[in-house]
Amino acid sequence: MSPASTPAPQPADDAAPGRRDADPAQLFDAAIDGERGALARLLSLVERGGEPARAVARIAYRAAPPYTIGLTGAPGAGKSTLCDRLITEARGGWPSAENHPAEAVDQVAVLAIDPTSPFSGGAILGDRIRMQDHATDASVFIRSMATRGHLGGLALAVPDALRVLGAALVPVVFVETVGVGQMEVEVASACDTTIVAVTPGWGDSLQANKAGLLEVADLFVVNKADRQGVEEARRDLRQMLELSAPGEWHPPIVETVGTDGRGLAELWGEIARHRSFLIESRQLERRRSARLEDELRRVLAARLDAQVAALASGPAFAEALRAVAEGTIDPYEAADRVLSAGGGV
Amino acid sequence: MSPASTPAPQPADDAAPGRRDADPAQLFDAAIDGERGALARLLSLVERGGEPARAVARIAYRAAPPYTIGLTGAPGAGKSTLCDRLITEARGGWPSAENHPAEAVDQVAVLAIDPTSPFSGGAILGDRIRMQDHATDASVFIRSMATRGHLGGLALAVPDALRVLGAALVPVVFVETVGVGQMEVEVASACDTTIVAVTPGWGDSLQANKAGLLEVADLFVVNKADRQGVEEARRDLRQMLELSAPGEWHPPIVETVGTDGRGLAELWGEIARHRSFLIESRQLERRRSARLEDELRRVLAARLDAQVAALASGPAFAEALRAVAEGTIDPYEAADRVLSAGGGV
Repeated sequence: MSPASTPAPQPADDAAPGRRDADPAQLFDAAIDGERGALARLLSLVERGGEPARAVARIAYRAAPPYTIGLTGAPGAGKSTLCDRLITEARGGWPSAENHPAEAVDQVAVLAIDPTSPFSGGAILGDRIRMQDHATDASVFIRSMATRGHLGGLALAVPDALRVLGAALVPVVFVETVGVGQMEVEVASACDTTIVAVTPGWGDSLQANKAGLLEVADLFVVNKADRQGVEEARRDLRQMLELSAPGEWHPPIVETVGTDGRGLAELWGEIARHRSFLIESRQLERRRSARLEDELRRVLAARLDAQVAALASGPAFAEALRAVAEGTIDPYEAADRVLSAGGGV
Repeated sequence: MSPASTPAPQPADDAAPGRRDADPAQLFDAAIDGERGALARLLSLVERGGEPARAVARIAYRAAPPYTIGLTGAPGAGKSTLCDRLITEARGGWPSAENHPAEAVDQVAVLAIDPTSPFSGGAILGDRIRMQDHATDASVFIRSMATRGHLGGLALAVPDALRVLGAALVPVVFVETVGVGQMEVEVASACDTTIVAVTPGWGDSLQANKAGLLEVADLFVVNKADRQGVEEARRDLRQMLELSAPGEWHPPIVETVGTDGRGLAELWGEIARHRSFLIESRQLERRRSARLEDELRRVLAARLDAQVAALASGPAFAEALRAVAEGTIDPYEAADRVLSAGGGV
């Protein structure tokens, strides 16, 4: 895996089109040197799943994880615009907070999650015209994510992608979802700080998943706060928060106008305050280890799903099925036989 | 399992409350003798899952399956009333059809499926006031089904329940769903004949799952056909059917008024016609063997899910998790270790 083990190393031009996959270790070296094409290719390997994803994970897993900020909310809540503004704020660094000196943020990445899209990488990225301000900024990396072959889907591909970004020394990553589907909320809530964006009149737009969104939010944004109904939106959120179990952290509600940048400095300040809270209270560690446990459980489930698929296409399955159809054995006995033939339980 | 192996057999009063579980073989004997209490207890064992369900399946699997008729559609489509009327039609026997003489139907069962309810048996049954016409008819057995402990849920409990009814010599079973959730449509469509009930103005009520319902329907009912909009409902259905892939069987559209029984004889006739078609074309066999294959795959998946749960609470998981958290191994390697320790793949 090390460059030395490769007799004829590929040329360093990782971004050249049509080029064959390089060794992941070389790609990491290039990514750390600031080559965005190398980083993009590593993420493609992760999306592809299987052995390429494993080879990447094998190198990346030791890296310190980036600080991740999930941004979810109904379509039309202005998440892309908010994310665009937040990149600028983040590039200004973490502000100083109680017990925390200011910290520079030299790189920022955005993962845009769209589980409904069969495309990834370039496709949606091309549409994200609102982020064009950052297109020429080498310290900003924007990437849409779908899953092509990743067993276990986005819920497994995203942690791997975050690991890659961490190994490429990106300290802050925004995970923005296109909609508020179950998978998207799951992915956004598996971040260090989770922001739920609403707009005046939000109640109806989130109807289906209101309780779920309230539960995962560390921070609410009422975006498009120049519109009518912002007071009602804030009041509705407060009322619902009062009904939920009180914790040590009280999710603040920030009003923003993404289009002119109003409230964005305050929003970034609240994200920084939440980060300090997580570090001080040691909840950051606890959250991350709970997430890791969840991830490991998913990896196991995905492996066993693959085993079901493999068993169901094997000869023992066909034989057991025939026996059940002929009335020789019952389905439970059949499952026993398939599993013991397949080396399972 | 045979009564002879039980030294002190229980009294024959299987329906007595508070009585301990009898031997499944004895319960089957009693159920075949027409004791509805024994049948109810067998279905309770199936719902309970685990070893009791297996013991029942071990006896029931050889029985000839009943003819099953799934009835699904949005809440408010009048499914319970239709089902009530269909019981009466079914009790009149299968009408003669091309190549098929008339056949008596001496027993009918209804399984009412409500995956959202934590209750089963008596609870919903008590509410099914519309079926009270049949409450004193010993040849009609009505039962609500939920799953208490059945691993794999209703999708596995229902085939087991149908097997029990077949072993108790019930020749016709209606499987009625409360709503049109994914699981309910799946269960209703895993029947020999699947009926989708709509009402005038149905388009909106089924919006979410329209394509799925169209795909599984062998027969459409426009119920409440005394209301305005029945022509539009029929036309909408026709148009959608024209867009779908043509098969050998063209799903008929029957208009009914459940409350006064209009169209019910025609509906039963169409069910009989579909049954004849399935038998003649040998699709009945093919459908049933495809369903059996699907069931066996689900049994395997449920077993492997149980394995994930067991692995995730075992010492190898905790150890692997610690190693990943400490940065010693990556999550994939961790999964390998947990699986090999747990005797898995």
